Amino acid sequence: MYGAVIHAPGDVRYEQRDDPRIEQPGDAVIRMIATCVCGSDLWSYRGVNPVRRPTPMGHEYVGVVEDVGADVRTVAPGDVVVGSFFASDGTCEICRAGYPSRCVNAIPMGRFGTQAERLRVPMADGTLVATPGEPTPDLIPSLVAASDVLGTGWFAAEAAAVGPGKTVVVVGDGAVGLLGVLAARVQGAERIIAMSRHADRQALALQFGATDVVTERGDEGVERIRELTGGLGAHSTIEAVGTNESMQQAIRSTRAGGHVGFVGVAHGVELTGQQLFNAEVHLFGGPAPVRRYLPDLIDRIFRREIDPGRVFDLTLPLSEVAEGYRAMDERRAIKSLLMP
Amino acid sequence: MYGAVIHAPGDVRYEQRDDPRIEQPGDAVIRMIATCVCGSDLWSYRGVNPVRRPTPMGHEYVGVVEDVGADVRTVAPGDVVVGSFFASDGTCEICRAGYPSRCVNAIPMGRFGTQAERLRVPMADGTLVATPGEPTPDLIPSLVAASDVLGTGWFAAEAAAVGPGKTVVVVGDGAVGLLGVLAARVQGAERIIAMSRHADRQALALQFGATDVVTERGDEGVERIRELTGGLGAHSTIEAVGTNESMQQAIRSTRAGGHVGFVGVAHGVELTGQQLFNAEVHLFGGPAPVRRYLPDLIDRIFRREIDPGRVFDLTLPLSEVAEGYRAMDERRAIKSLLMP
Repeated sequence: MYGAVIHAPGDVRYEQRDDPRIEQPGDAVIRMIATCVCGSDLWSYRGVNPVRRPTPMGHEYVGVVEDVGADVRTVAPGDVVVGSFFASDGTCEICRAGYPSRCVNAIPMGRFGTQAERLRVPMADGTLVATPGEPTPDLIPSLVAASDVLGTGWFAAEAAAVGPGKTVVVVGDGAVGLLGVLAARVQGAERIIAMSRHADRQALALQFGATDVVTERGDEGVERIRELTGGLGAHSTIEAVGTNESMQQAIRSTRAGGHVGFVGVAHGVELTGQQLFNAEVHLFGGPAPVRRYLPDLIDRIFRREIDPGRVFDLTLPLSEVAEGYRAMDERRAIKSLLMP
Repeated sequence: MYGAVIHAPGDVRYEQRDDPRIEQPGDAVIRMIATCVCGSDLWSYRGVNPVRRPTPMGHEYVGVVEDVGADVRTVAPGDVVVGSFFASDGTCEICRAGYPSRCVNAIPMGRFGTQAERLRVPMADGTLVATPGEPTPDLIPSLVAASDVLGTGWFAAEAAAVGPGKTVVVVGDGAVGLLGVLAARVQGAERIIAMSRHADRQALALQFGATDVVTERGDEGVERIRELTGGLGAHSTIEAVGTNESMQQAIRSTRAGGHVGFVGVAHGVELTGQQLFNAEVHLFGGPAPVRRYLPDLIDRIFRREIDPGRVFDLTLPLSEVAEGYRAMDERRAIKSLLMP
C-alpha cells in the first residue's frame, strides 16, 4: 500500500509501505475512507519536533473494516468505523474512569501512520466505534474531525467547565480552537469570545457560535477580555495552541475560580507555582479522551446537529498529502482532508 | 494595645501598637480570644520573604465583637466570631461564585496583624461568622483552626476532588496537611496516605483518619505511592507545603485524570506545560475560600464531629508570641496557639 512518510522537516512523501495485517487477536485492519493532517503534525513538519528517521505520519481516520482478529466483538468487516488517535483497551481502571487516551496499554495511532491506504488498529473493541449505518459522503469530513480535533475541542470545553451562563474565551483559531467554539456552543455557553486575527477563521468561529471576536493578543488581549467581562475575566478558557504565549493568555484571561482547559500540545510552556496560586484557576488538559466522546459525537453528526467537518477547507487525494502539509504550514488552509 | 511585630527574620516582638477603631461603616472591632502562628508566617521569620520594615503579624483569629460600624447587620457586640484570613465583601460576583478570598475588594487580614489584643475587621458582614452560642473553652482551638488551616485543608481536599472510593495522598505534615487528612476523612475518602517522617505528626495523621503513612520522598516516595495504588497513582493529592519538591511529588503521585489540590504558598515551584500535558491531572489551588466554609465548619466543631484544634501542640500567652515562632521554626511545635 501507499502512505505518507516524513523524511525531514518539510519533506513528506507518498510512498510504498508494508501492507498492514492482523497481528494480535484484538486487531482490526481498516481500509481508509478519509484521513487528514493535524496541526500537531506540523510540529515535525516545521522541525520543532526532531525527525530522526523516515516516519509514517497521521493519527486521524475513518475507514471500513476489512478484517478482524479472533477476539474482536464490537466491529466486523464492512462496518464504517471512527477511532481515536490513541488505541486503548477500554477495560483498565483508567479507561473506565473516562481517560482512554491514558489507558495503561495505550498505543499512539501516530506510530502506525493513518495517512495511508490501510491501517492496523490494535485493541479494536476499545478503540473503534462503528457508525450507526453507512454515512452519506457529506458526513465523512465531520466523522474524520470527530477522530481528533472535534473530540479535542469537546474535551477542552469540558475541561474548561463550559456550561449555561458561562463566558468562554477560546485562545487559538486552528481547527481545535474552532471546534472548541462549536463545543462551547453545544455545551450551552452564553458568550463565546474567539481570539483570532484571520478573517476566514473569524468567519468560521462566528458560524460555529462565537458571539465576539478579539483580535488583540498579549497584554492588550487580556485587557480586552477584562473589558468584555466586567473586569473579572472569563469563567472558562480553552487553550488550543500550546505555546507559552497562548497558555499565559489563557490563564490571564480567566477569573479566579474559573477553569482553563488546555489541549494545545505544549511546547515551551513555563508556569510558576506562584502564578498558579495567585491566578487560582482550575487547570486541566492533556491528550483528549476522544474515545469516550465518540458514540455521542457520531450520533450528533448523524443527526446533523453539528457540522464540524467545515474546518476542512482543502480536500486532496491522499497521494497529494505533501500539498496538504504545505497548505497548512503556509496557512493557506485551516485543515487538509485526504481521501485515498 | 499590644501585638506581635516582626522587625527582621527571627526577630518577632510583642510591643505596643495603635488601638484599632471603627474607620468604615462596615467595620467591626473585636477583642481577641485566641490567635496563632501560621506555617506561612515562617516564610518571613526565616527570611524567605523579605522583611523591609517592622510589620504586624498574624491572620488567624477568634474574638468577641466589641464595636461595629453603622452598616453592620450580621454580627453585634458580644458575639463570638470567627473570620477568614481575607476580608471579603460577600456580595461581588467572585464572592457569590464561592471564592471570597479573591473578592474584588479583598483585604488580607495579615495587613492588620491578628496576633494582637484587638483587631479591626473590614467588611464585617462578608468576613465574620458568629458562633451559634458561647463556645466552651475546649472549642476555642478548633475555632481558631477554622480561621485558616482547617478551611485551607478543607479546600485542598475539595480541590483534589476527594470523595467516597477515592485514594488520597497528602503531601505535607504541617497543620494544613494534617487537617487535609481530617477533611479527606470527613469528605468520605476510602484510603488516606499521609507522607510524613515525623513520629508525632504521623500519630496525629493516623488519629485524624490516615490509613497509611509513607516516609519516603522524591522518586522513592512516588514509587511507594504507585506500589500502594496498583501502579496508577492516587485519585486525589493534597499539596500542603509549597516547595518545588512537594509540588512535583504531588503531581507525580496522581493518576491521569486525577486531581491535585495545592494550598502550600508557592515558593520556587516551576512547572512545564509538557509535564502538565503528560500528567493530565486536574490542578487547582490558591488562597482557600475559608469564608465559604466557615458556617459548616463551625457547625461541625460545635457538634463535636471534628476536633481540628488538636493541631495545636503548644499554647502560650500572646505576650510570649516570640517563643511561639521559635518553637515552630525549630519544629518543636506543629502549631502555636496564642491567648491574650
